[in-house]
Amino acid sequence: MITPYDDNYFMKKALQEAEAAFDKGEIPVGAIIVVENRIIARSHNLTELLNDVTAHAEMQAITAASNFLGGKYLHNCILYVTLEPCQMCAGALYWSQISKIVYGASDETRGFKSMGTQLHPKTKVIEGVMANEASDLLKRFFIQKRNLN
Amino acid sequence: MITPYDDNYFMKKALQEAEAAFDKGEIPVGAIIVVENRIIARSHNLTELLNDVTAHAEMQAITAASNFLGGKYLHNCILYVTLEPCQMCAGALYWSQISKIVYGASDETRGFKSMGTQLHPKTKVIEGVMANEASDLLKRFFIQKRNLN
Repeated sequence: MITPYDDNYFMKKALQEAEAAFDKGEIPVGAIIVVENRIIARSHNLTELLNDVTAHAEMQAITAASNFLGGKYLHNCILYVTLEPCQMCAGALYWSQISKIVYGASDETRGFKSMGTQLHPKTKVIEGVMANEASDLLKRFFIQKRNLN
Repeated sequence: MITPYDDNYFMKKALQEAEAAFDKGEIPVGAIIVVENRIIARSHNLTELLNDVTAHAEMQAITAASNFLGGKYLHNCILYVTLEPCQMCAGALYWSQISKIVYGASDETRGFKSMGTQLHPKTKVIEGVMANEASDLLKRFFIQKRNLN
C-alpha cells in the first residue's frame, strides 16, 4: 500500500519550518504536530527574534497544539521535529504525555538522550528520519554565521 | 547588618504568587526573578487556565524577565521559586544561564534533582528557603481538591 502520509511526508513539513527559521537568522529547527494525519501546529525556533530561550520550535508547537485541542494533554499526537529535543523540550513533552516523537538529526551534546531527560512512559520515539537534510541545514547555518562574523 | 532584602523577603513574594495560583485552582507554585534587589518578573502556575503544560511559573518568569532585560540571557538574575523546578523548567534555566536559583520545597518525584536534569555550570542553587510554607500550601491545595471531587 502506498500512503502519502508517512514519516518522510511530515518531516518535510517540519524541514520547511526549519528553513523559515534559517531565513530569519534563527538556528534552523522546525516542528509540526499531527493528529490523524492532520497538521494542527507548525512552528520554528524563534529564540533570537523573541529574545527568549523558551521559544524553541517544540515549545511553541506544544502550546499551539494544546490551544487547537482545547486541552493540555497531547494524546494521539505525533511531534515531528528536525533536531533531537533538548532537556527543556523533552521535559515539556513529558508533561504533555504526547504519543510519539519523530526526530531528524541527533544532538549528541544538548539532546535529551545524552542529557538523560525522561519522557513519559506512554511516549514512543523514532529517530533519524531525514536526519541528513536536517543536519545539512544546521551545518549550512553555522558556516554562514561564521563567515559573516 | 540588617538587610530587608534577604532570601526570605523575596521568597515571600514568590509565595504570594503561589497563593494567587491557589485562588485560581492552579497547583500553587509561584516565582519571581530579581536583579540587584529589584523584582523584574512575577508569575504563577497557569497550566489549567491556559490549557498548556508549558505554563509553569518559572517558564513565564523567564520569558517576562528576558522581555524586561531585552536579552535572552539571565546573567546576574536570581530566580525565587516556591517548588523545586521540574525537568522542563530546569532545562529552560540551563539555556538562560541564570546566576542563581533559590527554591522552597523539594519535589522528590518530579524535581530536576531526582530526574537528573543539568543546570548551567554558572548557576548556583540554594534549596529549602521557606520550604514548610511552600509545601503546606501545596498540601492544602491537594486536600481541598480531593474533598471537592
